[in-house]
Amino acid sequence: MTTDSEQPNTDFRPEARAPRGFADKRARDLRAERAILEAVSAVYERYGFEALDTGAFEYADALGKFLPDSDRPNEGVFALQDDDDQWMALRYDLTAPLARFAAQNWETLPKPFRRYAFGPVWRNEKPGPGRFRQFIQCDADTVGSARPEADAEIIAMAVEGLEAAGLPRGTAVLKINNRKLLNGLLTAAGADSAGQKLAVLRAVDKLDRLGVDGVRLLLGEGRLDESGDFTKGAGLKGKAVDQVLDFVQAGSTGGRAATLDNIARVVAGSAEGDEGLLELSRIDAALSSLGIADDQAFIDPSIVRGLEYYTGAVFEAELLLSTTDEKGNKVSFGSIGGGGRYDDLVARFTGNVTPATGFSFGVSRLAAALRAAGREPGGAARGPVVVITFDQAHMGEYFSVVGQLRAAGIAAEVYLGTSGMKPQMKYADRRGAPAVVMLGGDEIAAGTVTIKDLDAGRMAAEGLTDNAAWKAERPGQQTIPRDQLVDAVRKIIGG
Amino acid sequence: MTTDSEQPNTDFRPEARAPRGFADKRARDLRAERAILEAVSAVYERYGFEALDTGAFEYADALGKFLPDSDRPNEGVFALQDDDDQWMALRYDLTAPLARFAAQNWETLPKPFRRYAFGPVWRNEKPGPGRFRQFIQCDADTVGSARPEADAEIIAMAVEGLEAAGLPRGTAVLKINNRKLLNGLLTAAGADSAGQKLAVLRAVDKLDRLGVDGVRLLLGEGRLDESGDFTKGAGLKGKAVDQVLDFVQAGSTGGRAATLDNIARVVAGSAEGDEGLLELSRIDAALSSLGIADDQAFIDPSIVRGLEYYTGAVFEAELLLSTTDEKGNKVSFGSIGGGGRYDDLVARFTGNVTPATGFSFGVSRLAAALRAAGREPGGAARGPVVVITFDQAHMGEYFSVVGQLRAAGIAAEVYLGTSGMKPQMKYADRRGAPAVVMLGGDEIAAGTVTIKDLDAGRMAAEGLTDNAAWKAERPGQQTIPRDQLVDAVRKIIGG
Repeated sequence: MTTDSEQPNTDFRPEARAPRGFADKRARDLRAERAILEAVSAVYERYGFEALDTGAFEYADALGKFLPDSDRPNEGVFALQDDDDQWMALRYDLTAPLARFAAQNWETLPKPFRRYAFGPVWRNEKPGPGRFRQFIQCDADTVGSARPEADAEIIAMAVEGLEAAGLPRGTAVLKINNRKLLNGLLTAAGADSAGQKLAVLRAVDKLDRLGVDGVRLLLGEGRLDESGDFTKGAGLKGKAVDQVLDFVQAGSTGGRAATLDNIARVVAGSAEGDEGLLELSRIDAALSSLGIADDQAFIDPSIVRGLEYYTGAVFEAELLLSTTDEKGNKVSFGSIGGGGRYDDLVARFTGNVTPATGFSFGVSRLAAALRAAGREPGGAARGPVVVITFDQAHMGEYFSVVGQLRAAGIAAEVYLGTSGMKPQMKYADRRGAPAVVMLGGDEIAAGTVTIKDLDAGRMAAEGLTDNAAWKAERPGQQTIPRDQLVDAVRKIIGG
Repeated sequence: MTTDSEQPNTDFRPEARAPRGFADKRARDLRAERAILEAVSAVYERYGFEALDTGAFEYADALGKFLPDSDRPNEGVFALQDDDDQWMALRYDLTAPLARFAAQNWETLPKPFRRYAFGPVWRNEKPGPGRFRQFIQCDADTVGSARPEADAEIIAMAVEGLEAAGLPRGTAVLKINNRKLLNGLLTAAGADSAGQKLAVLRAVDKLDRLGVDGVRLLLGEGRLDESGDFTKGAGLKGKAVDQVLDFVQAGSTGGRAATLDNIARVVAGSAEGDEGLLELSRIDAALSSLGIADDQAFIDPSIVRGLEYYTGAVFEAELLLSTTDEKGNKVSFGSIGGGGRYDDLVARFTGNVTPATGFSFGVSRLAAALRAAGREPGGAARGPVVVITFDQAHMGEYFSVVGQLRAAGIAAEVYLGTSGMKPQMKYADRRGAPAVVMLGGDEIAAGTVTIKDLDAGRMAAEGLTDNAAWKAERPGQQTIPRDQLVDAVRKIIGG
């Protein structure tokens, strides 16, 4: 890679550190992410979505609005110039690569094109606690269908996917809205500039935080906050403000059908609103046919979900579990994924408007949400059974014992350092070993093994067990014939 | 990401193309890679190796010999300068990040540290047919054990891993050597300059291609090839040349023990050679205790495996299957993975020599090898059952049918485009659908479905079936009560 003359001075010792904003993930995190991805992939494939993975790089001109600028090529993305002077950037989401792929292969793709994808995306942003510059996303999109049923499929699949990932019914919900409803209402009310519509969306997006009265001010002239700062409002007049507030509160506990009735009353008489309403009705019907009930996916007119990107239906997945941080404090997780209908991405390349709809979630974020709710994804990780090394002369015996355990599907290893008994026990503990196996000269002569049950020790240390009967069943240490080893270890792991 | 003034002219249409050397992977490739990684991960975890994933970037000074050079930062790697002026580069293998991680966390890691990892690595090289700039590697390493048994574990695990990945016993083999043997022999023969040793290794590495006579010339004064080019030799004298040739041919069909006897005779009297021999003996003993037979892992003194990197044992996995390219021509796959013992990587950071050993293979390359041998990894991919869309009014019926199939674990979807019957059949065919399901007005009224067996059609078209009995069992099209749908589809998929 370099010529000899460029080799570093051998006295140079670089500091061993991961680049800022990049995390090293160990077994527990990887186990959780893989469990989620495996479960979700199985659901997505059952829905007829095919897997796709594109490379890490895209040409910068293909990445949406980003324009390469050699003075600051890394604005938001990680970009570099290839040998042939073309700018490439690491993908910052999975949608832009999908749009490029679909445009590139449109002629030969089965259409509509249903694909799912997962993998790392990169954002060149200021790193901070819990804010990383690389994370795993998982997306599913249908490209080439304007049918509301395509949205319904995405929603139903998101519901089933989250359930498979460890959020059973009642612990998460999909909220659905349609951008055309509010647009139609505003157009009918004469508030039809793009700027005013954007200001209304921004105001509605603050409903959770500011409540109805706060949003009312932001829809009208503006709002003075506690610190004395004034936020200019959207400038709607009295009746339009009431209509918008009626609309965002049209969600009904009576289910999707009741909410649709409420919305119909508010947006009546607007062509775009009627279109949005018809789309939502068809989404509702398809969801019902797919067996998705009102408590799994409901219509919430207050959902905004991004400002400029979506053109019709929008979806947001919300966690309903109460969650705590590592110190036990209650934290609100809120949104754990979202998506909607977008029509312009493929058109950027081809000029042809291509209707598309999709759902995306952050895999590490979902894993964190599950963990915060006390549901370790993929279950608790188990270390290997560790066979203690006493004597080089007995290595063959140790290896035949680990071979026996592995053949039974049990993770096991011989300790291969050079330390004594105590550090070996510490090693086994650090690995989360359920048990250690000891073969001293006596055991080998007698054809036995001694097993020390570390799990029982941990549970006892944590005060989890004071039941005498349980203790009797879990001898801390036992010497047994070698052919009973697998059964004894299974009892410890299973127990 | 950019301000409005920088937005591209809306008439600008970037060409939709993947960056040079980056492949889009579709379902078949991903299915194969995932099947391999899942199978191998299960084996590695059973051996007590824990999963680790580091970020895509490392600081350039941590990436081995690579020195950042702002005039050509991308020599071999993809590098860029972070906001704080530090050079970062995408990892080009999984060993350098492991060394950095181990050095950074040495105090708190369980030692020896056994980890496996898989994921993309990036090489900024000239792309070409079949030569990509991003590919998936899978590595397992033990850091902090000098014991030959640690090498044996890596070898045994590689054997089992390749078997699990789809190469049953007899279709692949691990070849083992030890760098110290030849080193010791050369030192004893007085050929102890680093340059001369390197020239000898280079000559030995050509044994397959040039045969014994060609290598003999390269070990001595040099060799004139057919084109008239002269390659200067290693400059060994007569007896040393014979010794080296005896050594590289010491591999015995009589198994590891017989080969060790042969080697002992050749390297006798060299301290470093004796050390290498002792290490190989202990590797052999541990392999035998682990149940790894001579045909699964044998000692081959002609294996070189990289020139400067390894310090002791080296391993190479070789495919024994005959393979053909897509045109049916025989191709030789040769090595499908390798590794060995290296002691200097962690020392780069800490100054402390830390013995390490590992095995690495390219996942896409292994998938290609399996495919070339007619063994599709993960089995043949199946598309979803496609329900034909005739009438918007019957969408509810279509969705309840796909719901029925999905609930039974069968991939299924409603066609959500707007085309007629013929394009829908073409869509189903492109998706590799085993069957299409049709619900016309008559079927709906009668509570039936019509199934068209596309698999049978494909097999018939390929002339795979002319058996009348088989044909009778596979009616091309059948109309059945709806509650028999799942069974009928299962028969098609299973049949």
